[in-house]
Amino acid sequence: MNVVPVNEAVSTETADDSRIDGNLTQLEYLALNSDFNLSDGHARQELTPGQGKMVGELPRLWAEAVVRPVEEIERESHRAFFHLLGQHSYPGADGRVLACYSSSVAMEIFARALVTEADAIALVHPTFDNIPDILRGVGLRLVPLEEDVLHGGDVPAELLGSVGAIFVTTPNNPTGRVLSRERLVRLAEQCAEHGVVLALDTCFRGFDEAGQYDHYEVLEASGCRWVVIEDTGKLWPTLELKIGWLVRSANVGLPLAKVYSDILLGVSPLVMLMVKRLSEDAADGGLRDLHEFIATNRALVRANLHDVPGLTFVDPDSRVSVERIHLGDRSAMDVWAALREHNVYLLPCGRFHWADPSEGDRMLRIALSRSPASVDVATRALRSVLMGD
Amino acid sequence: MNVVPVNEAVSTETADDSRIDGNLTQLEYLALNSDFNLSDGHARQELTPGQGKMVGELPRLWAEAVVRPVEEIERESHRAFFHLLGQHSYPGADGRVLACYSSSVAMEIFARALVTEADAIALVHPTFDNIPDILRGVGLRLVPLEEDVLHGGDVPAELLGSVGAIFVTTPNNPTGRVLSRERLVRLAEQCAEHGVVLALDTCFRGFDEAGQYDHYEVLEASGCRWVVIEDTGKLWPTLELKIGWLVRSANVGLPLAKVYSDILLGVSPLVMLMVKRLSEDAADGGLRDLHEFIATNRALVRANLHDVPGLTFVDPDSRVSVERIHLGDRSAMDVWAALREHNVYLLPCGRFHWADPSEGDRMLRIALSRSPASVDVATRALRSVLMGD
Repeated sequence: MNVVPVNEAVSTETADDSRIDGNLTQLEYLALNSDFNLSDGHARQELTPGQGKMVGELPRLWAEAVVRPVEEIERESHRAFFHLLGQHSYPGADGRVLACYSSSVAMEIFARALVTEADAIALVHPTFDNIPDILRGVGLRLVPLEEDVLHGGDVPAELLGSVGAIFVTTPNNPTGRVLSRERLVRLAEQCAEHGVVLALDTCFRGFDEAGQYDHYEVLEASGCRWVVIEDTGKLWPTLELKIGWLVRSANVGLPLAKVYSDILLGVSPLVMLMVKRLSEDAADGGLRDLHEFIATNRALVRANLHDVPGLTFVDPDSRVSVERIHLGDRSAMDVWAALREHNVYLLPCGRFHWADPSEGDRMLRIALSRSPASVDVATRALRSVLMGD
Repeated sequence: MNVVPVNEAVSTETADDSRIDGNLTQLEYLALNSDFNLSDGHARQELTPGQGKMVGELPRLWAEAVVRPVEEIERESHRAFFHLLGQHSYPGADGRVLACYSSSVAMEIFARALVTEADAIALVHPTFDNIPDILRGVGLRLVPLEEDVLHGGDVPAELLGSVGAIFVTTPNNPTGRVLSRERLVRLAEQCAEHGVVLALDTCFRGFDEAGQYDHYEVLEASGCRWVVIEDTGKLWPTLELKIGWLVRSANVGLPLAKVYSDILLGVSPLVMLMVKRLSEDAADGGLRDLHEFIATNRALVRANLHDVPGLTFVDPDSRVSVERIHLGDRSAMDVWAALREHNVYLLPCGRFHWADPSEGDRMLRIALSRSPASVDVATRALRSVLMGD
């Protein structure tokens, strides 16, 4: 949790980085030390009593991690997590699940492996900006795939013919839109026909049952080349201790294991045991409680802001742990700057729209994985700013 | 700690990866579930009583990490670690210390930032193969810098004129050779003259006081553009929970903070507090004890193997936590394969010599950060194999 002030970053960086706003993560750094950080999408609420037991058990989990074979711990960890989220057909038995320090490290490994055979990738638009930045950073050319096109029907054959892979975040961040089973079936078929790699980022699927049908069953049946990035990091407030899993089809044909081996030997078996423990708690009612917790915070945001003239809630059906609001004719950066004076941090949405930032210029994203008190104070402050109190 | 069997990795990878031996990390995976894994350089000995107290304190450290500002925790953590290793002039106050999940993640970020302005880098030869692989993986061309040339005097001006950066591992892995203060002064001067970035990987410096003079004082005085990668991961058996710090000069001119922000928001404050706690224990005598522990294991290796005909100890003065042996006219891969039948894993040295693997074909590397019992059993098995018992 490094604090890299945007100004510092800008002053020592190349001209290309000298935007006043920086990227979304640079804006998130600014919020890290605030009590009213509703900026990043990481889980920062209090542990539930059930989860809190795990903290007391850490010394015992450490001792267990020391004595047991890591292979065994790893298998139990991904089985507990993948099964919790309905992914019963994931290929856990044959070494196709690579544990990474985070989903972004998994993303970097995927990007580095893909660029050895492809020069372009289609990417859902909008989505969190570190995805396009990582893909561009390794030298890939990006082709936007609009959400409405993705969800509306077949992907244009012309687009499929022009790229080596298609990357879809589902549920999407920040919109919460989920790729239906029906659409995944057809998209995987199309990718198989065109020899295009289908890459899914499912980091937010824990929040939405609509994203918990068995994706691996669909992917394996299609015969397409596929990669999935799963993430434990958004669900539980585990102080940034998490796993990003990089899963692949047997026929993927990309040097994923080789690039992985350049970057890591493995993640901590202590973190694997934590994930197993928290997955068991979630299966035992904790996930249902989490859904209620997020729904309550979302309702609080909407209640506190419902009468602000011109303000709209953009994603009425979203279940993920972030909520977008449209500010009408107000600039998101202006409101962001005004809120900062109250030590309240939200996230302006321009950079989610990586192919056309102006589309997000009047929207803010509010993180919901926070204590209800923080959500309440922050959204009341937002209300004051918007009402000109 | 993923188990990626070499065969599996090879079967699904590109033709370029179909070597039977894989890279060093892929060989290390094979050893992960063995009781006689003397393969990877990670710390796997038992915690000392002083270090073990930290495990019991984990619930308290967790609670501390939840309530305190992360910025404060981070500053305390790097101060404790850098000061422990004599690095009093490191730029801790002004955001030039980026905490990464590991030194390899720091390496990846450095490589991705460097390739935005340079197409070639000089790299010490030999060194651990994930360094050349990461540098090549982002598209950099490598120029070997032989250890004898590096330590012998000025680096050739022709070499400096042909690259954007020079990368030096000091103490080196696997040789243990340390860049002296005198040589660093001159190398930094030369880099300043040529506008070349000087990059140091000091991951093993905790083991050798010769590597603990204040490098930052020298680097800052030189005016050169520099980057240093520091690592907590080799010193303490913390179940892969570690920090790789990426430190830079104010004038480095590379988009390090930007690439960093693509990949992470920050490392865990729990790990930061662990590192602080273990640094304090090390300053209080723990580091001296660790040096004795490694020296004892090294002496055990040498005692168990001293009478094997043709075997030599290649690095008599090395203090780092690995020991190389030369097998005379025996092939390292043959001996490696024979030992594997005893469930004992060492590391053949070919791939450390990334520009000429045949130079390492008759050497093995033995990891010393293990219980003395494991070192004893493994080196007795090695002796048996070599003596043809």
